[in-house]
Amino acid sequence: MATLIKNAHILTMDDQLTEYECGFLLIEDSQIKMIGEMSKLAVDSESMEVVDAKGGLLLPGFINLHTHLGMIPFRSLGDDTPDRLRRFLFPLEQVMTPELVAASSEYAMAELMLSGTTTFSDMYYFEDVVAKSCEKMKMRGFVGQTIIDMTTCDYRTAAEAIEGCREFINGWQNHELVTPMIAPHATNTNRVEDFKSIVALSLETGAPIMMHVSEMDYELTEIKEAYGFSPVEFLNELGFLDCHLIMAHGILLSDSEIELLSNARGLVSVAHCIGANTKSAKGVAPIKSLLEKGVCVGLGTDGPSSGNTLDMFTQMRMMANFQKTHLRDRSAFPAKEIVKLATYGGAKALGLDGKIGSLEVGKQADITLIETNSVNMFPIFDSYSAIVYSANASNVESTWINGVQVVSNHELVEQNLKTLREGLDSCMVEFREEVSKINKTEADI
Amino acid sequence: MATLIKNAHILTMDDQLTEYECGFLLIEDSQIKMIGEMSKLAVDSESMEVVDAKGGLLLPGFINLHTHLGMIPFRSLGDDTPDRLRRFLFPLEQVMTPELVAASSEYAMAELMLSGTTTFSDMYYFEDVVAKSCEKMKMRGFVGQTIIDMTTCDYRTAAEAIEGCREFINGWQNHELVTPMIAPHATNTNRVEDFKSIVALSLETGAPIMMHVSEMDYELTEIKEAYGFSPVEFLNELGFLDCHLIMAHGILLSDSEIELLSNARGLVSVAHCIGANTKSAKGVAPIKSLLEKGVCVGLGTDGPSSGNTLDMFTQMRMMANFQKTHLRDRSAFPAKEIVKLATYGGAKALGLDGKIGSLEVGKQADITLIETNSVNMFPIFDSYSAIVYSANASNVESTWINGVQVVSNHELVEQNLKTLREGLDSCMVEFREEVSKINKTEADI
Ligand SMILES: [Zn+2]
Ligand SMILES: [Zn+2]
Repeated sequence: MATLIKNAHILTMDDQLTEYECGFLLIEDSQIKMIGEMSKLAVDSESMEVVDAKGGLLLPGFINLHTHLGMIPFRSLGDDTPDRLRRFLFPLEQVMTPELVAASSEYAMAELMLSGTTTFSDMYYFEDVVAKSCEKMKMRGFVGQTIIDMTTCDYRTAAEAIEGCREFINGWQNHELVTPMIAPHATNTNRVEDFKSIVALSLETGAPIMMHVSEMDYELTEIKEAYGFSPVEFLNELGFLDCHLIMAHGILLSDSEIELLSNARGLVSVAHCIGANTKSAKGVAPIKSLLEKGVCVGLGTDGPSSGNTLDMFTQMRMMANFQKTHLRDRSAFPAKEIVKLATYGGAKALGLDGKIGSLEVGKQADITLIETNSVNMFPIFDSYSAIVYSANASNVESTWINGVQVVSNHELVEQNLKTLREGLDSCMVEFREEVSKINKTEADI
Repeated sequence: MATLIKNAHILTMDDQLTEYECGFLLIEDSQIKMIGEMSKLAVDSESMEVVDAKGGLLLPGFINLHTHLGMIPFRSLGDDTPDRLRRFLFPLEQVMTPELVAASSEYAMAELMLSGTTTFSDMYYFEDVVAKSCEKMKMRGFVGQTIIDMTTCDYRTAAEAIEGCREFINGWQNHELVTPMIAPHATNTNRVEDFKSIVALSLETGAPIMMHVSEMDYELTEIKEAYGFSPVEFLNELGFLDCHLIMAHGILLSDSEIELLSNARGLVSVAHCIGANTKSAKGVAPIKSLLEKGVCVGLGTDGPSSGNTLDMFTQMRMMANFQKTHLRDRSAFPAKEIVKLATYGGAKALGLDGKIGSLEVGKQADITLIETNSVNMFPIFDSYSAIVYSANASNVESTWINGVQVVSNHELVEQNLKTLREGLDSCMVEFREEVSKINKTEADI
């Protein structure tokens, strides 16, 4: 099966940022077979599916490097309240079930695809069901089983979670779409012996590790008081920097920590979640310094409770404005650099830059098409500017993952959004009851 | 002619923030005639147009308190370049024509309506044509003729511009949709004698004044060096604080300037343009202090060259994140406060809070309906959170201005977007030629 996409303004996001003003792209099986200017198109398209991009912007699918897909039920809940984590999140996470996580994750995957995201990197509970949801939804996912030193909705202890995680990794090795990960919750929420088992498991299996790092001011205090280290020094001591490690946030990193990261023996990256970080008033991560030191950076939304939407457009726009203001330099992080981080940057962080992250012959066909007919998309003097500063999630017209078209004309191809929503809603009965209880308690305070 | 909107979750934005969970709203002629819960609906709707909101969020139309509608041609041009004002904006503004300003303004009004904005406050050149465009588009506009101490595309001198402005004001007094304004460009770009004429003209005619104030660091230096004052002290000396004054930006206001504003005898407000201010790395205006001192605040996008899109959703989201981070307080500016500023706040700044800015019986029917079926709009535990953190411009389903439905099912009712775009594009020939020349010069540098 072959698909020919024609009349697209193609932003390949390759090393030279090659563009084709009026180009075509040929998908065969799951891969990109040909790419070029329309004037050089010489294939017989009779037996192919042909998609006319009508001048829209064709680029690699976005990569959401840090999220919690199971948390759709939390969206718009207690957004502006202090200490939300302990008042809302922890109590409500006790009532999460595999069914609710699956329904939430599938709904979230729909949101990702509809906004042009083709790969996500997740951490939550019951991740085996999230992996299965990837198969159902035909979505590329890095799927991280949470390990935390407390009883959760899925495991009684961290040790049990680690054992469960080992089985989970074994069950999903070498899958075409799913990569299992180990997700210790944060630097201050696990015990040293468990961290050591996690490092050993990662080195043994090759499974990447995703962890919240340098996010909370109390995280820094706790690690310093308990071990005398900064979070990254602590991770280094434990051997995490020899692993494939994706650190979410990295807001409070010091220069010496960035130096440590830059010398890491493993593939170590930072998932920059600017929307979530600034909505919770935590601050702006030092992305310029990280990139200057050669540390890999991608963008993430964080979960729908913190980031609210899962689309990368909001993150790109926020990143531009926050980083420019933070650095007091309007020319810092030009739009093309930000689009690069949202696509190729994420692929590199996941160790998939040979496979996805740019539109090049031989790569997997993970692609998004952004239409330019909507009122906000005219004029376009600079396509990257239009993506970062003008576009929103609803401008995504089509999305392909691994060669399969999952979104066409702004709608899911094989799935039905209304059905996914009703399915999620019907799983939320107990969750809503718990919310009512909490709101009652809050009102009494 | 009467219109009944039913099955809406109504956010009235009145003083008590009254909500109707499943409500109706009746429009008769240009006004809101009735509002309440569906259970109390008792009108004969046979002869009415009936709109089923299907659970969508109904609220007052947004008010964009500072913009430059004539600048659509500049969108996505030179976004990340330093000194953009002198390299791109000033040279290109020399080739602006009344036809281009009209075509741009009408396209911009389409963008405003489609994103739920029902009133704008503009400053640019050839404002008489912008006023006429309001009539054509059926949009409510505060329309400010620019006065600046240089030769512009419309007037040779500031004195001529002031005289032209006087005629412009006379021509549009007491119009149902259009309010003419005087728009001295900035505190540092006019001469004292012209400022004095402007104040006199405003006091004589009652026309509001819109001006860029406390936006640029060099603005502060220049005013201090020339007159020994801070910008607001300077405005106070000149009598501006006795007028109806809308100050765009106010980024660098000091406490003593805020004190002066709080004691102003005229109606003085700040248009907070957070997206434009932070994209250009200028900083975050002290909105909390201004509001605490009783100064009126509304939100603005600034022009499409600085703010890129004209929708208020981007501004609301940006404001939440920037103000929370700036104040290091995640509970600062909860969503409902921000929605209030984007609606009622703008109305108050324009002196129209008795007429628009909330959904109350007797007010003009300036209304927007935000659908909640899209993937990003579920679940909704807090409607204000959903608007600020989840929604984007494309979620706007319908818009009414002065009782007339101008957007229905995400499309313009009486106008055709494609036609407006083609019209604008055909006016941009000379503009595009100038852009090519500048880009060539830039490449040579
Ligand atoms: Zn997270
Ligand atoms: Zn402006």
